[in-house]
Amino acid sequence: MASSRIDLNADLGEGFGRWTLGDDEALLGVISSANIACGFHAGDPSIMRRTCELAVQRGVAIGAQVGYRDLAGFGRRRIDMAADELSADIVYQLGALQAFAAAAGGRVRYVKPHGALYNTAATDPVQAGAIAAAVASVDAGLPILTLPDSALAAAATAAGVRPVSEAFADRGYRSDGTLVPRSEPQALISDPDEVAARTLDLVQTGTVVSIEGVRIPIRPDSICVHGDSPHAVEIATAIRRVLAAAGIEVTAFS
Amino acid sequence: MASSRIDLNADLGEGFGRWTLGDDEALLGVISSANIACGFHAGDPSIMRRTCELAVQRGVAIGAQVGYRDLAGFGRRRIDMAADELSADIVYQLGALQAFAAAAGGRVRYVKPHGALYNTAATDPVQAGAIAAAVASVDAGLPILTLPDSALAAAATAAGVRPVSEAFADRGYRSDGTLVPRSEPQALISDPDEVAARTLDLVQTGTVVSIEGVRIPIRPDSICVHGDSPHAVEIATAIRRVLAAAGIEVTAFS
Amino acid sequence: MASSRIDLNADLGEGFGRWTLGDDEALLGVISSANIACGFHAGDPSIMRRTCELAVQRGVAIGAQVGYRDLAGFGRRRIDMAADELSADIVYQLGALQAFAAAAGGRVRYVKPHGALYNTAATDPVQAGAIAAAVASVDAGLPILTLPDSALAAAATAAGVRPVSEAFADRGYRSDGTLVPRSEPQALISDPDEVAARTLDLVQTGTVVSIEGVRIPIRPDSICVHGDSPHAVEIATAIRRVLAAAGIEVTAFS
Amino acid sequence: MASSRIDLNADLGEGFGRWTLGDDEALLGVISSANIACGFHAGDPSIMRRTCELAVQRGVAIGAQVGYRDLAGFGRRRIDMAADELSADIVYQLGALQAFAAAAGGRVRYVKPHGALYNTAATDPVQAGAIAAAVASVDAGLPILTLPDSALAAAATAAGVRPVSEAFADRGYRSDGTLVPRSEPQALISDPDEVAARTLDLVQTGTVVSIEGVRIPIRPDSICVHGDSPHAVEIATAIRRVLAAAGIEVTAFS
Repeated sequence: MASSRIDLNADLGEGFGRWTLGDDEALLGVISSANIACGFHAGDPSIMRRTCELAVQRGVAIGAQVGYRDLAGFGRRRIDMAADELSADIVYQLGALQAFAAAAGGRVRYVKPHGALYNTAATDPVQAGAIAAAVASVDAGLPILTLPDSALAAAATAAGVRPVSEAFADRGYRSDGTLVPRSEPQALISDPDEVAARTLDLVQTGTVVSIEGVRIPIRPDSICVHGDSPHAVEIATAIRRVLAAAGIEVTAFS
Repeated sequence: MASSRIDLNADLGEGFGRWTLGDDEALLGVISSANIACGFHAGDPSIMRRTCELAVQRGVAIGAQVGYRDLAGFGRRRIDMAADELSADIVYQLGALQAFAAAAGGRVRYVKPHGALYNTAATDPVQAGAIAAAVASVDAGLPILTLPDSALAAAATAAGVRPVSEAFADRGYRSDGTLVPRSEPQALISDPDEVAARTLDLVQTGTVVSIEGVRIPIRPDSICVHGDSPHAVEIATAIRRVLAAAGIEVTAFS
Repeated sequence: MASSRIDLNADLGEGFGRWTLGDDEALLGVISSANIACGFHAGDPSIMRRTCELAVQRGVAIGAQVGYRDLAGFGRRRIDMAADELSADIVYQLGALQAFAAAAGGRVRYVKPHGALYNTAATDPVQAGAIAAAVASVDAGLPILTLPDSALAAAATAAGVRPVSEAFADRGYRSDGTLVPRSEPQALISDPDEVAARTLDLVQTGTVVSIEGVRIPIRPDSICVHGDSPHAVEIATAIRRVLAAAGIEVTAFS
Repeated sequence: MASSRIDLNADLGEGFGRWTLGDDEALLGVISSANIACGFHAGDPSIMRRTCELAVQRGVAIGAQVGYRDLAGFGRRRIDMAADELSADIVYQLGALQAFAAAAGGRVRYVKPHGALYNTAATDPVQAGAIAAAVASVDAGLPILTLPDSALAAAATAAGVRPVSEAFADRGYRSDGTLVPRSEPQALISDPDEVAARTLDLVQTGTVVSIEGVRIPIRPDSICVHGDSPHAVEIATAIRRVLAAAGIEVTAFS
């Protein structure tokens, strides 16, 4: 069944102090949901404020991109944390972003874990539960953006929080619905036109063709657009163009 | 003119990770307002959560004790920051604490700068203005606890935020109402009974006797009880006992 | 076979900024080797300098206690790091301590990983190899203090670095020579006299009695004295007294 | 009097974790002295190691670019630190870099403060003295690169450390030899050819033309080439080309 609307999300505000990363301005013209870094893996307070202001101006939904406290590792290294410590770290980051979002005239609409926390929470019930508990303690009405059928999706549901699923238009899928690991050849699609075509196909058919050539059902609430790859903006722009040509509206998930 | 009630405030939650500081449990039995560290100079998220929970349980008002981003210096070293950067740092800390306070069933009632930021904001209009702007952007209804007649009090007023003034029962005052610098002999009073007696006198008369022996008017909304001195708990307990004996209620400023 | 000398090591300099931990002064009167924190899990530069100066004054050998970059977790949370990143982190910490040791008129004599890094390196060949490579790149003459038969001991040997083994007088041993996990009842011995007696027995016989009652051989180059337990100084003092009474010299391993 | 050789220095290794800054590879082909960031304002251990290795390979002298502990502010915010704390921070950073330099087959040749520390040490005798004391305590044979006639030059001399002076080819000078503040129009010269011509003139004549049109003597041991401006590499390349054409050798100061 075809869908006439889809959400595009991307990571934003991932600089820190003197350092910049990605082209936030350009991405804000393409996406409908911004995963804004909250200071633990990237994103200092000044960047968070500015990114929230830009998102509100552009009508892009604000999400809290929470991560491990690991600036040196950009949140890409798994940390074996106790659940209560991780939960407190999530509440902290989420609360901080809420203040900036509100000051900018908006509000945080969802939560998405970053990097190693995203991957860990997809399979580790303890860390998944910590994230879900944190979100529930702040605002159980905030959905959590994650992989379908992940430990985090299950933990969110158990905590009374809605899991929202995302797909990756630039990643290869296996026939069982899992992503091809980055260490393997067909993991990543870098040609903008191909990524755009896959995105359109995914939205229109609710399926994706696996690397084995099988059509598998995949009905995401959102599609993740990577923001810091060399061709990030080019890919995002191609996706947006192709979706527009097909009459598909890009809008934040409800 | 005598007052029948007064607020006692103290710094709480100033540990970090493995490190503890002060006897928060004991202080919570004495004070009516807790200045809770927000992670930049002290106070990690786990400590912030626990301290908020304890404060709510004990009926103690929660204040955001915001500081410079300087764990190594405990926020006691002035940092020459641009106003917009400082302002963003304050919003970040305040928002983070708000999330913990709300999760604990309470809310942040006021803001108090810590250490070098407190001292700088007392005289520097730029940093004072940055703090006031930050608070106004989050919630102009949150008062700022500061020295009377300080740059921060003026900046708060200018920003539409109420300044709340505090006095120090364990510090010597000059006849012009300023504190005796810590480098001078009569700066600090360490005898618990003397501090308690001064507190009672201050509350009952609205004056304090300066080191020159002059009675000066000083009508604070709150009295600061230091939490990390060797005799902190002993002093706080003496103050509380003397006030109770005199029928003065210890309660958060309204 | 009895030994007439033994090394006692303990963690020192584990405060940070305003926060203190343990009684370094007292421990320096007991131990012969100080594992000095290098700033990543604990120990700021000022503390490192002072601790090196004290160690040199007291004739205590200086060791670099290297850890994960994790002040909030005190280095007690495993971080999944790439080997080259971990190796660089070790070189950094080691070099920093070398400068303080040299400025104090001494030099770093050995390296000991801290907390989760210690535990991880005992079993994980990748992180163990990273530590060994780091030490070899700085000074292959610096031994690494670790558990006997650990992955780190093997990696050290492979890298041309001497592993030095330690035992724990306050920990229960199984008959296979491994430590009883802290989650189990007989993991920890807290009575100072019992710990002291076990230490003496261990030094004199080269064996320890396992929790199953079997004498197992254990011939450490050093015995670890915990510095931040409630009775740390009491235990260390009891050990020292019992060893002295038996004519056993406490001296740094050669 | 003409000189037939000059040193060009630039800041290198100023990324952190995921974030990069400047084109170190290109600059290494131009300069003779690399001011390598030591982790406090920029430069993580992995970057420090790689930058040291590259510098050794390219025959570029390694300098320790020490800064305030302020990643969020990139070391560009003055911190009011006690002299002994600042001194310890310098020793720490210097020792860390020494380990990487030695592991790469080289050694640290000099020290240069970064950003706000550079500016503060130029006029503040306390912070200048702290830097000089730190360098003297590690290796009094390491020169300190600073402004001529600065507080740091004086403090270095007083501590038995050699001050080495630098000039800025892209900055306007006043007739009294001081730099035009960045807030004023003629502070910065951005045209590569003009900067190159000024550099050549400076090296050949030992003078620079002030903004008032007066030739003033300025005989630096080194010329600073900025690494993170938009045209940094272009400017550096132009300087190098013009110097080469004039037969002037670019070589580290001795």
